[in-house]
Amino acid sequence: MKSYRKELWFQTGHRREYVNITPQVRECLRESGVKEGLCLVNAMHITASVFINDDEGGLHRDFERWLEKLAPEKPHSQYDHNGFEDNADAHMKRQVMGREVVVAVTEGDFDFGPWEQIFYGEYDGKRRKRVLVKIIGE
Amino acid sequence: MKSYRKELWFQTGHRREYVNITPQVRECLRESGVKEGLCLVNAMHITASVFINDDEGGLHRDFERWLEKLAPEKPHSQYDHNGFEDNADAHMKRQVMGREVVVAVTEGDFDFGPWEQIFYGEYDGKRRKRVLVKIIGE
Amino acid sequence: MKSYRKELWFQTGHRREYVNITPQVRECLRESGVKEGLCLVNAMHITASVFINDDEGGLHRDFERWLEKLAPEKPHSQYDHNGFEDNADAHMKRQVMGREVVVAVTEGDFDFGPWEQIFYGEYDGKRRKRVLVKIIGE
Repeated sequence: MKSYRKELWFQTGHRREYVNITPQVRECLRESGVKEGLCLVNAMHITASVFINDDEGGLHRDFERWLEKLAPEKPHSQYDHNGFEDNADAHMKRQVMGREVVVAVTEGDFDFGPWEQIFYGEYDGKRRKRVLVKIIGE
Repeated sequence: MKSYRKELWFQTGHRREYVNITPQVRECLRESGVKEGLCLVNAMHITASVFINDDEGGLHRDFERWLEKLAPEKPHSQYDHNGFEDNADAHMKRQVMGREVVVAVTEGDFDFGPWEQIFYGEYDGKRRKRVLVKIIGE
Repeated sequence: MKSYRKELWFQTGHRREYVNITPQVRECLRESGVKEGLCLVNAMHITASVFINDDEGGLHRDFERWLEKLAPEKPHSQYDHNGFEDNADAHMKRQVMGREVVVAVTEGDFDFGPWEQIFYGEYDGKRRKRVLVKIIGE
């Protein structure tokens, strides 16, 4: 069994932002040499997500409005978690969107449907944060 | 290490529908010959889910009403993603319900609790769509 | 390839409660002897979650209020699933928070970011329920 790990670093310009990280994760897979196995991709921070969905700007604006409706950032004082921090909403948004994805590796590539793309979802950005890529297989 | 992959195809009669796919996925596990390992089951489309919950019709009606409250389909014009498409709500519903499950394989069977069943959750159906089953182990 | 499984049992004092299970899951990892691989941790019951977030009491109170807003427990009669049962809301809360996490194992420990902790999220408690830990690797 082979195993591979790598950390990918991101710093977004906005508090909330979606970054298509499929090219970087695919480069990890190439480096790993794994042909058959599983690839775990997870946010290492608890106010961010990794998820798979569509690379379409309109949808990302819809996500922004929708998550602000489900778990509004402001007023910061509505959350017990806030005080020294102001990011309780980010902890909730990350639960809706998920911490991680597990992707099948088949014949050396991601075993994706036609529109699947891997995103880093940032809900408390403007600072350096990490995603972990762990691949096991043969 | 053994590895196995199979695509399962579904076409629902309604736009939104829940299908218990446990028997088909168990058949995949039997075919794989894997006795100890992990089984990934994921929607290959970004407007559908794979999740584990209860096989109870009342609950599925509750899910339908609840998801329509959290991310209503109509009016289609409320979403930037819609225009050529009308399925922005389906992309959101899939985030709440999840893309995938990873199930432990122990002694050749799914290592399930008493009520766990695997569902395909369709939010933009009436056309042929796929689920991927990937199993690794020994 | 090594594989390891263990069931962890929990009985919460309240209907809804969050339990930090990181120490018990880490003990499983130590027992397994796996140095490189993947660790699946999942609720075996469909009205509970396993998720990764912050070990902070204020945030857990925020989760409680937020989930009660998204999928209120009462009135019980609002859900078709209820009748003999009263836990439809728990099935929904578990979908928002997730069934499982998959954690990378690197050099014999969890490959965690600075604040990641594994939680058992109970939404229909006061009875004995189980979490499954399955580890594969070398």
